[in-house]
Amino acid sequence: MSRSLLIAGALLVAGCSATQPPSTLLTLPGPIATQYAPVAQRIIDAALKRNDAYAKLSYLCDHIGHRLSGSPQLERAIAWTQDAMKRDGHDNVRAEPVQVARWVRGRESLTLIEPRDHDVAMLGLGGSIGTPPEGLTAEVEVVADEAALDALGDRARGKIILFNNPMPPYDPEHGAYYGSSVRFRHKGARIAAEKGAVACLVRSVTAHSLRSPHTGAMSYKDAPRKIPAAAVSIEDAMMIARLRGQGVRVVARLSMEARDEGMVPSANVVGELRGREKPDEIVLIGGHLDSWDVGHGAHDDGAGCVMAMEAISVLRRLNLIPRRTIRVVLFTNEENGLAGGKSYAETHAPELHKHVAAIEADSGGFAPRGFGYEINDPDMQAVAVRQMADLARLFAPLDATTMSPGGGGADISPMKPANVPLLGLDVEGTHYFDYHHSHADTLDKVRPDELSQCVAAMAVMSYVLADMPGRLGHVGP
Amino acid sequence: MSRSLLIAGALLVAGCSATQPPSTLLTLPGPIATQYAPVAQRIIDAALKRNDAYAKLSYLCDHIGHRLSGSPQLERAIAWTQDAMKRDGHDNVRAEPVQVARWVRGRESLTLIEPRDHDVAMLGLGGSIGTPPEGLTAEVEVVADEAALDALGDRARGKIILFNNPMPPYDPEHGAYYGSSVRFRHKGARIAAEKGAVACLVRSVTAHSLRSPHTGAMSYKDAPRKIPAAAVSIEDAMMIARLRGQGVRVVARLSMEARDEGMVPSANVVGELRGREKPDEIVLIGGHLDSWDVGHGAHDDGAGCVMAMEAISVLRRLNLIPRRTIRVVLFTNEENGLAGGKSYAETHAPELHKHVAAIEADSGGFAPRGFGYEINDPDMQAVAVRQMADLARLFAPLDATTMSPGGGGADISPMKPANVPLLGLDVEGTHYFDYHHSHADTLDKVRPDELSQCVAAMAVMSYVLADMPGRLGHVGP
Repeated sequence: MSRSLLIAGALLVAGCSATQPPSTLLTLPGPIATQYAPVAQRIIDAALKRNDAYAKLSYLCDHIGHRLSGSPQLERAIAWTQDAMKRDGHDNVRAEPVQVARWVRGRESLTLIEPRDHDVAMLGLGGSIGTPPEGLTAEVEVVADEAALDALGDRARGKIILFNNPMPPYDPEHGAYYGSSVRFRHKGARIAAEKGAVACLVRSVTAHSLRSPHTGAMSYKDAPRKIPAAAVSIEDAMMIARLRGQGVRVVARLSMEARDEGMVPSANVVGELRGREKPDEIVLIGGHLDSWDVGHGAHDDGAGCVMAMEAISVLRRLNLIPRRTIRVVLFTNEENGLAGGKSYAETHAPELHKHVAAIEADSGGFAPRGFGYEINDPDMQAVAVRQMADLARLFAPLDATTMSPGGGGADISPMKPANVPLLGLDVEGTHYFDYHHSHADTLDKVRPDELSQCVAAMAVMSYVLADMPGRLGHVGP
Repeated sequence: MSRSLLIAGALLVAGCSATQPPSTLLTLPGPIATQYAPVAQRIIDAALKRNDAYAKLSYLCDHIGHRLSGSPQLERAIAWTQDAMKRDGHDNVRAEPVQVARWVRGRESLTLIEPRDHDVAMLGLGGSIGTPPEGLTAEVEVVADEAALDALGDRARGKIILFNNPMPPYDPEHGAYYGSSVRFRHKGARIAAEKGAVACLVRSVTAHSLRSPHTGAMSYKDAPRKIPAAAVSIEDAMMIARLRGQGVRVVARLSMEARDEGMVPSANVVGELRGREKPDEIVLIGGHLDSWDVGHGAHDDGAGCVMAMEAISVLRRLNLIPRRTIRVVLFTNEENGLAGGKSYAETHAPELHKHVAAIEADSGGFAPRGFGYEINDPDMQAVAVRQMADLARLFAPLDATTMSPGGGGADISPMKPANVPLLGLDVEGTHYFDYHHSHADTLDKVRPDELSQCVAAMAVMSYVLADMPGRLGHVGP
């Protein structure tokens, strides 16, 4: 361990208190902060003064639109982001082929026919099968969770099961409650089918709604019987639950043309700011270029893509060529298969040991708060944790100094077995799930100033990790 | 002027300061507050302890649904509210026939075909004509307001004109900015047609959107040429405006089956708490039973209807029979014609001079803040203003003591020429226009506790105005 790191470690321990947030852990700058503070400030100033992230996002949203795997729009986005990175002068811009699932929604509707005619606001879940062409008509039964489904017993047979499990509103202490609420979307169809249900509805995974259905991936796993699955708006879920709570018989007709059209060609888009000394060592930054087939994938995850693209453009305009390579990867198929992330980890397996870090931005383009990190190599952990605390200070001008364990991102998670350090950009999270996977995930929800702050944070983190003499998690150069 | 009123007036002047809000005008209770504080507290306690307003609203929303004039749902609501008032033991429950316009939306869609395929979130405006069966296809031009339309000149000819005029968010000082923003919905089609446009789009009149279109009434007045008109979501309006701002040609296909089906029978629903001494003197309370044909008319104005129905039920259960009659009127056709309000004023013209006051609740079922009032008879004004200030104190337990000039309601406005004092229930206004005229105006947006506070406020105001010895605006009994 270098002398300077030992000093930093001692300062870290001395300055640490259980009641202090991570951003105040360091009382004096560590060696990384000391060395890189001036250049970090320069990067931040430049990014906030001018960057084209919002213009790029505007093109993706307004001119291309949503970008589901296997859609012509995603093909256009794959072509356009390569062109954009070439125009920005980046190195080794290319598309790396990936086979992805093509799921098509088709027309769909859900109509109550008892106790009265009522069109339900719905979106079929990604991966669901369709109904017979004439639709299916059945009584609706409402359950809150797995236990309530079990309690239904035989009464689930032949029914449409609605999982009416609410997602609590975001709070700063606990966050967004997405993790605990999304399970019915994933497995609802499978467990309802086990009880003999003919279709599955889930209350949309959001806490705020203007009768807004939210789609997302579902999974049959190895279920012997597949039933169609759709999300309904909070308002409709609550109304159906109220009616059933009064003992009123509810009958609905579900019609979905949803279908799987097999595997089709797609690609991860890659571009680089080639390193000046150790170009074969990689700091990967990126997001996913695909989106659901509603809204425009503005926060999820057009924002993450343009942040990464623009982070290296800001550095290049400053002529800041780091020691190592910063590689932008815009993954395909995060939403319904993760084929892009898996393919990257497989194709690049021989060089994953040269991946210094992989940083994903997939929490929306809101004001940055810091980074989450996951260091899986036990030999790296102690050093990396100290380095993250040291790095934190560089983000003080952005008020984004929170470096917290955990995080990363779905696309980079397949690199975990290779012990690549995984980082995820953390952003302010109040409204992300209001828009996520819905018609409302559009450009107007992204603030240019906040997106610029994200660009700055991604540029600083990737530059410093790519330039600092010692690799993240390693002592010495 | 009675001695007690003179004292109240002196106290009022003594306690008045330009910087104090109306709720603190009185430093000592006036004669009305002195006499009625105990019974007001009793009414409030009873209403907050138990009332069936939310249950009634739940029936209207969940079991009947939206209630556009001339629809079978409004017919059901007219029948059901009479039954409910009869079950509650009210007097003279009846439907008073009114002829109303029947406008039918039919199927409708708006699709961008240049620069790319995109389904716009839209709702035809009430009263609009339809398009030809095959739809109409034209370039879209965007204007901010009348001046921008004028500046377009001949370039408006043959175009679809989009009025992209934003409604600022609610703020406590200025309120909701609805009045200034809604004019394009009303007159947009007429002024665009004057310039040769083939259709009119308006940005939805709301400040918050999850890609939520908001409908509402439009008017051709005596326009020589009628063109179809629709509202589009904020998100779509902004996107089209951005594209046009970049000089991108935008072409859309509008298809609307909207049509006028002439006049059909409908009714105002009336029920009374008959006065014990002067039953021919009337305090009218009410809201409108009709709604737009999207959402469930929960805040607009199912809430106002059930408040009025339940206000007299609370009084009846307390055996509080006031001196004068409290008459509940659930008006028909407020949204697209005001036929209910006009018909009431015409039919009841001979007894309007016996209407002590008319109180409408049509701002949603949010927490009450007080009442607005409009006293048009100059002989009544001075006394009525003092009486309103005196009354304010009765609403302190509800934190609803703001009595402010202006207000009333659309349905009661036709009684203005007869100099009937008009009052409107004021409620907390932050979110009303998030839901108003949209798919999101559903029961879940109404809080039972806030609705109960409204019931209490309506019950207290109607009881005291119906019971106090002197009529509102008059000195002495």
